[in-house]
Amino acid sequence: MLAQRLIERKRDGGRLEPGEWRALALAYASGHVPDYQMAAFLMAAFCRGLDRGETAALTEAMLGSGSRLDLSHLTIPRIDKHSTGGVGDKVSIVLAPLIACLGIAVPMMSGRSLGHTGGTLDKLETIPGFRTAMSLAEARLQIDRLGCVLIGQSSEIAPADRKMYALRDATATVESIPLIASSIMSKKLAEGLTGLVLDIKRGSGAFLPELARGIELAELMVQLGADHDCPTVALITAMDRPLGRAVGNSLEVEEAILTLKGEGPADLLEVTYALGAEMLVLGGIAASHDAARRSMEHAISSGKAADRFAEVIEAQGGNPGVVEDPAVLPQADACELFAAPRRGLVARIEPRAIGRGLTALGGGRTQVDDVIEPSVGFVITARVGDWVEAGEPLATIFARDARGVESGRATLRGAITIGDEADLPLPLVSHRVTAAGVRPYSAAGSGPEVGDVATDR
Amino acid sequence: MLAQRLIERKRDGGRLEPGEWRALALAYASGHVPDYQMAAFLMAAFCRGLDRGETAALTEAMLGSGSRLDLSHLTIPRIDKHSTGGVGDKVSIVLAPLIACLGIAVPMMSGRSLGHTGGTLDKLETIPGFRTAMSLAEARLQIDRLGCVLIGQSSEIAPADRKMYALRDATATVESIPLIASSIMSKKLAEGLTGLVLDIKRGSGAFLPELARGIELAELMVQLGADHDCPTVALITAMDRPLGRAVGNSLEVEEAILTLKGEGPADLLEVTYALGAEMLVLGGIAASHDAARRSMEHAISSGKAADRFAEVIEAQGGNPGVVEDPAVLPQADACELFAAPRRGLVARIEPRAIGRGLTALGGGRTQVDDVIEPSVGFVITARVGDWVEAGEPLATIFARDARGVESGRATLRGAITIGDEADLPLPLVSHRVTAAGVRPYSAAGSGPEVGDVATDR
Repeated sequence: MLAQRLIERKRDGGRLEPGEWRALALAYASGHVPDYQMAAFLMAAFCRGLDRGETAALTEAMLGSGSRLDLSHLTIPRIDKHSTGGVGDKVSIVLAPLIACLGIAVPMMSGRSLGHTGGTLDKLETIPGFRTAMSLAEARLQIDRLGCVLIGQSSEIAPADRKMYALRDATATVESIPLIASSIMSKKLAEGLTGLVLDIKRGSGAFLPELARGIELAELMVQLGADHDCPTVALITAMDRPLGRAVGNSLEVEEAILTLKGEGPADLLEVTYALGAEMLVLGGIAASHDAARRSMEHAISSGKAADRFAEVIEAQGGNPGVVEDPAVLPQADACELFAAPRRGLVARIEPRAIGRGLTALGGGRTQVDDVIEPSVGFVITARVGDWVEAGEPLATIFARDARGVESGRATLRGAITIGDEADLPLPLVSHRVTAAGVRPYSAAGSGPEVGDVATDR
Repeated sequence: MLAQRLIERKRDGGRLEPGEWRALALAYASGHVPDYQMAAFLMAAFCRGLDRGETAALTEAMLGSGSRLDLSHLTIPRIDKHSTGGVGDKVSIVLAPLIACLGIAVPMMSGRSLGHTGGTLDKLETIPGFRTAMSLAEARLQIDRLGCVLIGQSSEIAPADRKMYALRDATATVESIPLIASSIMSKKLAEGLTGLVLDIKRGSGAFLPELARGIELAELMVQLGADHDCPTVALITAMDRPLGRAVGNSLEVEEAILTLKGEGPADLLEVTYALGAEMLVLGGIAASHDAARRSMEHAISSGKAADRFAEVIEAQGGNPGVVEDPAVLPQADACELFAAPRRGLVARIEPRAIGRGLTALGGGRTQVDDVIEPSVGFVITARVGDWVEAGEPLATIFARDARGVESGRATLRGAITIGDEADLPLPLVSHRVTAAGVRPYSAAGSGPEVGDVATDR
């Protein structure tokens, strides 16, 4: 009867008190409220919204439904990065070992690919032997030793959110800003952090394409972080084209390794540096974004960051040889260059179409229990704004077989537009959201030179 | 994936095409769409609404999910009555045999009590041996022979609605006018009717208390009937006080029998006559409401109506002796008069409080699988507007034991207000809704004299 009354109240635009959120989350996590009642409640919440206090209460309720990673014994800062997800976004794989070797503990818990967006866990699992499941106790030990873990959300953390998220996915109740904010923050706040950096994507390939919605989400999460004494900074970054060149699980791991070795694509490196600088400044490890950037450049050029990644791989059961020789990753059976069908400017590389094309190749999921083909995907060397001649290679297709190659060709024909004019792509990093408000992103003395980034394609 | 797309569209205020409604209803009925997806869809439909065409399509889809009662071999009219439910409403039990013995086939399928409202099936089942479950084939045979059945909704009829209704009940998505209209009409249109009369209650004890909402529901159902060549007339009737004197399962059967024998309370008789007159005129059995009323009076005074009820009871396995001697019904162990606590006017008899009080005595349900105590309830002899002296009996409480009597006393103390002034109760029948529109109800040459009814308390 409790659930019905709460559904009714939310349905009629009313609000729930903190104790009611707590009771609902616990009753759902324990199975006392069935999925169908929670589904109706979530749709009512989607349609009627949650106010700021309710979002905080829901976050707290889901956080309280499980355990927390206790890292309070550490004297170093504990900072994680979370992204709303995109196509070709392998930043986490670069960032975790890079920041860990600069003296910040990074307890990174990631997700799996779904729909058009990829997932860090699926990418990491293409490394032979790599384990992404770990208990909180194990995670703690590895963080003590290596400064980071790269794992899935433990079932011990926010079980109410875990169950609720799966239900939202099946009931078209995902794209609600308060529900997204509380879901993400309940998991992140359980990681025992002293700071959090958010990468909120905007553009056609983003979960929330419109800038205004992205900023709304960022502001809400920054506030929720502040409520829990976890200073949070959000950057709004571009997802109107894939990030980096590689899209596909093992292909992205290879690109992340190249990046850790200083050979990565400029856009991926810039987004990584922008987010990493926020982490280092938040943690008090760097005095300015400039100084942070120099530290990161040094960690890469000295080989420290790549070495740390190899150690992390080994600690998590994977073959660390992958860092030296990415050929140990699964390789696609069929490869083919994709050539420009005409001369002109690369006007658009549509990320959502590329993401869906990866799923068509078998490298993504439409359902949570789909099995992923690790080796397939695209490496897109053309950049928006490039002038190309007819027949010039724009990308390489990696597929299981000739049929896959044909599917990949169809994807790229649809996704890459060659025209006489190219729209200006979105700036890689456009806004910075903190508890003090929203500001256009700029290097402004201490940050990276975003002016350069915006023209770097 | 289908379900998710449809949920998403409805969530965003879009509409579904008839083929989509059909696919959704069938997929749900067959278990291919799980409860949680349908729950989210229903809440989206509740919040965003259905337009007229969608309501028609949903009705058609649910109707098409099961079998229909084929009565096309009958040369006589086939007309049913449906009520939105109330407290003390035993009209169906009087009306079915009364109208059947006047030459109209009445394939009456009713529901069970839930919440504060009673259910015809629970009442009939207090008659020893009475069976309310019957296959469509059996129902057809009994209608051929006796002109009516008094049964539950067959599982063969509108299974999609059956399943959806149970889900709506558990997910706070009941009070949606398009969902209510399509649920009722999909079941009624499966009865193979040539006409339908609706009793839409208004007032504090009604499912939709506000007149405007009741009229909206009535208009929608009248239109849905017209779409299916089933002329439909709706009367708006009063549910600001219980109908008749008896509230409780076997007590209401006893009152229905008294009414069939000409000894029923005036308000119950008037509502029965008003609805019956619509049925007889719709069926072409009576030329006017006046003539219809005279036919009904004669069927009662001649004993034909009561005899027909006895035959129906016998055909459905019950003890027909109950018509002669209602003492064969289950009798409560504890009875007590309830006296007026002060002198004054009976200002209000709150039906919802009485209905809930019945449930507290064990005579109603809060959950669908609650077992009902047949004998308990109230017989309220006081009428709104009566002048009473302190200590004068207002009602009798029928309970299982002394504790029940105490609970009944508390119910009546709260439900019956004695004051210095009494508000005018709602007219018993206030509006008539047909395909031609909404009109204030009046005898107007052909109808019963409602002027009399309105002052008859």
